[in-house]
Amino acid sequence: MATLHHYPFCPHSRFIRLIFGEIGAELSLVEEKPWERRTEFLVLNPAGLVPVLVEEQGLVVPGASVIAEYLDETRSGGLDAMRRLLPQTVADRVEVRRLMEWFHQKFFEEVSGYLVTEKIYKRFMGADAGGGPPDMSAIRAARSNVRYHMKYIGFLAAKRNWLAGAQLSYADLAAAAHLSCADYLGDVPWDEDETAKAWYARVKSRPSFRTLLNDRVPGMAPAAHYADLDF
Amino acid sequence: MATLHHYPFCPHSRFIRLIFGEIGAELSLVEEKPWERRTEFLVLNPAGLVPVLVEEQGLVVPGASVIAEYLDETRSGGLDAMRRLLPQTVADRVEVRRLMEWFHQKFFEEVSGYLVTEKIYKRFMGADAGGGPPDMSAIRAARSNVRYHMKYIGFLAAKRNWLAGAQLSYADLAAAAHLSCADYLGDVPWDEDETAKAWYARVKSRPSFRTLLNDRVPGMAPAAHYADLDF
Repeated sequence: MATLHHYPFCPHSRFIRLIFGEIGAELSLVEEKPWERRTEFLVLNPAGLVPVLVEEQGLVVPGASVIAEYLDETRSGGLDAMRRLLPQTVADRVEVRRLMEWFHQKFFEEVSGYLVTEKIYKRFMGADAGGGPPDMSAIRAARSNVRYHMKYIGFLAAKRNWLAGAQLSYADLAAAAHLSCADYLGDVPWDEDETAKAWYARVKSRPSFRTLLNDRVPGMAPAAHYADLDF
Repeated sequence: MATLHHYPFCPHSRFIRLIFGEIGAELSLVEEKPWERRTEFLVLNPAGLVPVLVEEQGLVVPGASVIAEYLDETRSGGLDAMRRLLPQTVADRVEVRRLMEWFHQKFFEEVSGYLVTEKIYKRFMGADAGGGPPDMSAIRAARSNVRYHMKYIGFLAAKRNWLAGAQLSYADLAAAAHLSCADYLGDVPWDEDETAKAWYARVKSRPSFRTLLNDRVPGMAPAAHYADLDF
């Protein structure tokens, strides 16, 4: 069985957990606190970031996008064309990858990165690693930025059923992984866009999502509706 | 012929120009100043970033990593296995992608992004778009961070000939694209690591690199050795 070195509230790690849920492959989880910069972990991934996938045979695959491409090349053979998370035509692959980058980079830089860093990571980091009380200006920036992202998600979902096209893809899993972290913290304005909310309800209801809904930050309860499928 | 919407000192754009040079495909260049946020450009790429590749048939491919994957899927058939910029075995692809991310994200966030933003972009941006004099603390951070990246490049090049393995790959082109921007500005400490310098001299001597060496920032001369192949 493959092992994923992850942090439960790292959105990029959640994305990989969702992929494994969707393809129905077993995955052993090992929690890593990346801010501790453990030497053994830096050997696995010199960049010091989760997620890192380690195959039973020893191959190390670091980084959400690199793992997603790797899984497409090694695990998608058993999925029929309708269930391929990275579709098979060239133009569709461009669109899925564009949206993966949108969420893993742009949404993370503007929303989810601020929220998990300020509200979760800094609770557990030592003062020398940058821990301490949250920077409220970063949280306010995230809460402002998330609004146009909700409208963009609504725009895409209205046009296409799923975010990148007619079928569920890596794009939906990336978007939902990042939103789910913000949602735990109560920072998703669900009344901003009805179509975006309906799309998220569909992703959240998938069996692959259950494991995420059971995660808890020690000492910090989730928003009341976090695990509610009918929110 | 495909068209690349690029900015000459955007390292991600330079990476795509190098790939086209290496695969020997013609490319039409259109300069875009991404900070102007032109409506026509935002239609091409809602993220507002260069590079964006537009195929003659109209397909739009935005983002350095997305374009690199797309070119591997559509343009690499004519290259023999030794010249594939994204190699064909699964483990080698993981390593090339890991290093592409290293330079496009980590090196950009820690070094090249600071340098081109502070020293070039802010010269030409209006005050309302964030233009103005450079933030010297950002430039100092970049000059400090670049040192360990030089050592890492030297470490990889000493072990493997090229950065990701025995053959030139996307990893070398990504690293060289980012370094070339810093080098124009005189901010690469070439005495930090002899092996890294020798590796860069090899990449810089390739015909694909010539176009980059002719770029000039209006009103700002390059470092004396910028276009010198024997620096």
